[in-house]
Formats: sequence, C-alpha cells, structure tokens
Amino acid sequence: MKILSFPPRTEWPALLARPVQSTETIEKAVAPILEQVRTKGDQALAELSLKFDKIAYTGLPFQPRDLAAAESQLSDELKTAIQQAYQNIRKFHEAQRQPVEKIETMPGVTCWRRSVGIEKVGLYIPGGTAPLFSTVLMLGIPAQLAGCKEIILCTPSDHPAILYAAQLVGVTQLFRIGGAQAIAAMAYGTASIPKVYKIFGPGNQYVTAAKMLVAKEGMAIDMPAGPSEVAVYADDTAVPAFVAADLLSQAEHGADSQVLLVSTSKKMVTTVNVALTTQLERLPRRDLAAKAIENSKAILVETQEDAIDLLNDYAAEHLILSIENAEAVAERITNAGSIFLGNYTPESAGDYASGTNHTLPTNGFARAYSGVSLDSFVKKITVQHISSEGIRNLGPTIEAMAEAESLLAHKRAVSLRLASLE
Amino acid sequence: MKILSFPPRTEWPALLARPVQSTETIEKAVAPILEQVRTKGDQALAELSLKFDKIAYTGLPFQPRDLAAAESQLSDELKTAIQQAYQNIRKFHEAQRQPVEKIETMPGVTCWRRSVGIEKVGLYIPGGTAPLFSTVLMLGIPAQLAGCKEIILCTPSDHPAILYAAQLVGVTQLFRIGGAQAIAAMAYGTASIPKVYKIFGPGNQYVTAAKMLVAKEGMAIDMPAGPSEVAVYADDTAVPAFVAADLLSQAEHGADSQVLLVSTSKKMVTTVNVALTTQLERLPRRDLAAKAIENSKAILVETQEDAIDLLNDYAAEHLILSIENAEAVAERITNAGSIFLGNYTPESAGDYASGTNHTLPTNGFARAYSGVSLDSFVKKITVQHISSEGIRNLGPTIEAMAEAESLLAHKRAVSLRLASLE
Repeated sequence: MKILSFPPRTEWPALLARPVQSTETIEKAVAPILEQVRTKGDQALAELSLKFDKIAYTGLPFQPRDLAAAESQLSDELKTAIQQAYQNIRKFHEAQRQPVEKIETMPGVTCWRRSVGIEKVGLYIPGGTAPLFSTVLMLGIPAQLAGCKEIILCTPSDHPAILYAAQLVGVTQLFRIGGAQAIAAMAYGTASIPKVYKIFGPGNQYVTAAKMLVAKEGMAIDMPAGPSEVAVYADDTAVPAFVAADLLSQAEHGADSQVLLVSTSKKMVTTVNVALTTQLERLPRRDLAAKAIENSKAILVETQEDAIDLLNDYAAEHLILSIENAEAVAERITNAGSIFLGNYTPESAGDYASGTNHTLPTNGFARAYSGVSLDSFVKKITVQHISSEGIRNLGPTIEAMAEAESLLAHKRAVSLRLASLE
Repeated sequence: MKILSFPPRTEWPALLARPVQSTETIEKAVAPILEQVRTKGDQALAELSLKFDKIAYTGLPFQPRDLAAAESQLSDELKTAIQQAYQNIRKFHEAQRQPVEKIETMPGVTCWRRSVGIEKVGLYIPGGTAPLFSTVLMLGIPAQLAGCKEIILCTPSDHPAILYAAQLVGVTQLFRIGGAQAIAAMAYGTASIPKVYKIFGPGNQYVTAAKMLVAKEGMAIDMPAGPSEVAVYADDTAVPAFVAADLLSQAEHGADSQVLLVSTSKKMVTTVNVALTTQLERLPRRDLAAKAIENSKAILVETQEDAIDLLNDYAAEHLILSIENAEAVAERITNAGSIFLGNYTPESAGDYASGTNHTLPTNGFARAYSGVSLDSFVKKITVQHISSEGIRNLGPTIEAMAEAESLLAHKRAVSLRLASLE
C-alpha cells in the first residue's frame, strides 16, 4: 500500500478519486449488439453467444431435470450453507416490508401507499472466474419476497450452485446466455426470453454499458456499477491480521478493486502492511490481489473528525469500522453502501450470509444510491380517497393554486364537484 | 374521443401504445450543450441562457430581497392555499419515514438500515406557460424532510409563486437558468452552481434528454419522463360531467397529453363525450386540450375483469376509479403511478394539495418505477454488527460459500477470526 501521512484536505479529492473509465469505446461496441438483438432476436443471441462465450444458445430455458441434476452435484455442506444464507437474507429483507398506513391529511382526505411487486424482473449473473451463486440469493430473495411474478435469470454459467440457488429463490425461467446480448434480450424480449420491466445484476464493462444504454431508453436498472471497493477505518483496537484479511478479500475481486485504509495510528498502518505481505503469499488469487494492493492507499489522519470527513468524501461501497466507538461513528457516516462494525464483522459476512444485501453502490454512487433491497423490487403506488366533506375542505386550496398556474380545467374539475354539493 | 367498442385483447397492445418519441435528434442537440457547460462552466451558461431563453445569466442566486419582494406580490388567498398544500404534502411524506429496526438474523448477527438524506440535490422547475410552483412543493418538501443539506433549484422562471414556494421548502440556492444547460450545471458543477448528487424535476424534451444523458454517466435522477397521462375507469355510478372535467384537466397540459377512458357502460361513454364538447368550449387552453382529446380513446370493455387487465397493461401515470367498488378494484391494480378513488377525488387534488406527490411515472414506466417520495431523497445504508458468538454461528456458512466461489481471501477473513476465538 502507498502510505500517505496527513495529506491536507485540499489534496483529498485527488487522493480519493476513482480511476476514470472511458465508456465511449465500450458503448460503441455494445450499441450494435443491442441493435442486433432488438431486430433479430434469438438468431442474434445464437450468433453472439457462440462468438463471445463459445456457448450454443438453445433458445430453451434450463429444464427441471437440469436443476435436479445440479442439486445432486452439490455437497451437503454447501447446500446447508446456502440454505442458512437464504434464511438470514430472507429474514433481513422480510423486515423491509412496509405496512400500508392510511394518512388523513385533512378531514375527509385520505392518502396511502401500496407496495406492489414489479411483475417481470430480469437478473443477470456473470460467468467468469467466480460462480456468483451468492448474487442469485441477493437478487432473487427480494424478488421472491416482493411477489414478482416472472423472475428471469440469464447467466453464461451452468455452475450447479447457481442453478441450485435459482431454484431456492423461485426463478421462473433460467437461460444460459451472457454478456451485453443477455441484457438486450431481457430489455427488448426475444421469442425465447421475455421482456422484463427492470434489470439487476453485476457484470463486466460490456454488461454495465449495455445496462446504462437500455436505461437511457427508459428501462429500469438496479444502479450504475463500477469496480468493487472497501474502506477500512482502524484504530489501535483493531486486529492487524483481520484488517489485512479484509483488505485482501476485497483485493482478490480483481486488479481494479479499490482498497483504502484510514487510520489515526501510524503503528496500525505499519503492522497491517506487514500482515498484508505475509497473507498475500498464501493466497491462490495472489496476482490479482497483489496488483489491487499495489494501487491501494493507506491514509494517516490526525483525528477521528478527519477520518469521518474523509470517509464521507470517499463514499465507499463497503466501510469497515474497526474502531472502539464503531456504532457511534457509524451514526455520523452519511455516504456508504454498507457499514461493518467492530472486529468480528468482516465484509465477507455481508457478501454472503449475514442478511444484508451485497449489491451495493460503488464508485462514489453511495452519495445518491442505496444498495439493493426489497424496495428495489416493488413500486409504491399512491392511492387517495376524498369524501364530499374532504373536497369541501380541500377544494378552495386546489382552485386557488390551479388558477395561479393558469390551469383552468384543473380548477374546474374541483369547482364542478363543489357546485354539485351546494 | 375515438370510441373503441370491445376490441379483442390481441389489439390492446397497439391501442395502448404511447406515441414513440425518437430521442436521437434531441440527444444530438443536447450532447454539445452538456459538453460546453462541462468544459466552460458559467461562461457557457451565460451564452446558452441568452441564446435559448433570452435571459442574461448573472451567476448569482436569487437574493433575500428578491424573495421578500416575491412574497409581497402574492395574494393572501394564494399564500394560504400554498401553505395548506404544504401542510398536507408534508404530513403525507412525513409518514414515509422508516424507523430504524435492528434485526437479529442469527444469534449475535444484527443488521439494520439507516436512512440518510442525500447531501446535495438539484431541483429543476421549467418555465413555459404554467408557472409550476406546485412542483417546487412536491420536490422540495421531501428534500426538506430528508434533511438534504443543499437543495439547489434551477428555473428559467422568476414567477413570485415559485420563489415563495422555494422559500417555504428551504431551497438553499435558487438560480435563474433553464433548459439542458441547467441540468448540465447541476450535474457537473460550475463556479456559480454546485454539483449535486441527484437531479429531480420535469421539463421539455431537451431537459429530459439532458437528464437521461447525465444519468448514463452515473448521475442519479428521479425517473425517466414522458407526456402526462390520465386513465379514467367509469361505471354508471360515475358523474359524466366530473369524468369529462378530469379528462380535460389532463388534456390541457398539452396536445401530447395522453387521455384514456375505460368503461363497461356505453351510456357513460356517450354522455362523457357530450360533456367533453360542452366543457371544452369554455376552456381558455381549449386549443391544446382539443388536440389531446382528439387523439384520445374511449375503450368499451365487457367486464370489470377486462377493465382491470387493460388498465394494468396500460400502466397509467394517473388512474381515476369512478366506480362503485373503487377501493376493492384499486387493490387489484398492479401498474399505476397514483390512484384516485370515487366521485370526489379529482386528479387535480393530487396534482396540488391532497398530500400525495405529483411527480409520477409516465409512459408505462409505472410498471417498474414509483413516484417521487421521501425515499427518493434518502439513501438507506445497511449496517451490521457481529459479535464473537455471531461469527462462531455464521462463520462456517461464509467459509463454505466463499470456498465454493473460489474466493479464498473472503474465507480467510472469517477463518482468522474463528481461529482467534479458539
């Protein structure tokens, strides 16, 4: 790690800036893929899938026998673990349901909100080096709880744990297709893949660009995406080996992972650095992780105030507070995706099984975006009922405002009703 | 209105399709505006503002004396109306606060969510024929309740009611600037206008295109937008004059407004049509409204089941249920922005003052999007704390899953902690 001692606040923006990714070239590559799928449907999927993923797209979803076979390939230990994670994630997301509450804003004027599951959602699960069955749980469980009627899952992987998790969360159709073409298929619909109303899930730069391009056309997506990140704020109560392990568990995601250590203790920074070197040695994905660590920063600050300000400026996806007064400091964090408190709360708990969602805002998007939750899979429809008493109370207010906005038909819709009650 | 009697379901998609708007030409016009503001800041704002709006951009926000002067220009009647609307909207949005609830997903594993206001938000209020001070309330009140620290408002208008409403909701800086250049200013920041984290508000096609383009770059926006819409479902208990007035109050927004009447009663459709003609006569904005009505449809259906299915397929921004069993039917509506029940609940109540938000998903976006609410102005940060007992309980689950995803550093972050507890 590069150690930066007490940089002045004027230097923070440059220190905390994420690498800028030019999306133009990738968008130019992706736009024709979207267009092909939009106009040629399954034929385009077959061509593109063979070309990019070396997979023959069959046009058929996985069948019950494939799913049964997948289950039989998993160890009991892994199935039990997935089931435990399922229970915890479900419990946390279930508590996010909002009961309907009728609010009488004035006598006779009653307003409320109904949460309704989005009817058709599309989940994307990438292939690549790690089979992200945990993401199937993170996206599928809130979809299931929201009561989404069609849960479509596209993935280039046929890893049995992905297929098993998809069954657990009640995916209704699961297709083996990846990349920008999978996003296009769910955005526009093809003969085999239904058009959905909202698309979720991680992916490489092509998948991300495809999501942003269909979002520009009005498709709802979970959130914009960038490389994964962790910031750890450690004081002398932290355990250096744990901090190093947490930094590495972020770093192993890829060379572009963003890893940041903040501390008021020079001793802690030095000891963590030593632990990093030792732990890196014994890591299978050490090449990836070593690159990420090489690009990473440890920032020494004078005070806890400085640390809090710096962390709020950075707006980390994952923020680990390995400090004495972690819960109190967490109350003062205004920008972060998810916060992990104390020495026994590693990021990997939230990545897999504690119950919180691991689909979180990266790249500073935590300034405006929340992570995925049950909210992401429902719409809240407002409903109102006004009685004759209510329109008598509220009518004059509406009339005055509509008139001042020069919207006379708006006014008249009230005046006619008031006149009928005289 | 064009009356369509019992069209078969196969024809519904074509009947319910919104006019397709090609965004390509507008985006091509807007992209250079964004680029100019990004690179030349206030200088570009001055040039563009003069060119498009004939307004000399001063680089200064409205001053306290401008705001005081605005207030003195308003009638007491209008001020009272705006204050009443403020109270009702505030009451409804205040009830949307979610208390923090700590969930123990397993013994020793506690997860919760904190709602935190987005620090800097930008509101856009268009100029044009109607001074939309109501939209200042609809966006400003939830921003105020959320505790957003900077609430920036850009508008090409200097209408006193807009300035007055801006004060009520606690706008922190109010700039006289409009169009795509205003969106660019809030997205990128200039010397005079702060960069914000999320942009809200309606606008013409240029404003909308600007919002979609900055969203593609990762800026959060309220939602994609299209022309305003109402669908009215009326049975023989409806009052034809009220229905006609509601259709016209949507139609007067512009020739591209979408107006739909659905009924099982031929008599109702005929009578509403007669009322429409009579009421149109006496409307100041009758030319706009007449065009919208000309393009609108009345669809006769056989049964209430058909009506519900058709309305869910359409996914109206505003849905008025002027029917006997309105509340029961509302429970079966899965796609709509806001629903208005019964004969005394005109859309204009929700547009101005009942308490619900009037910034709603148009163009079928109600299939996936909610209207603006308090949620739109907060992020929900997840927090978790795991005790030593908790990591003992949860650790083996995380280890098994991390190993199966080949993320060994994730596993080790847990194993080290478990080992330390032995």
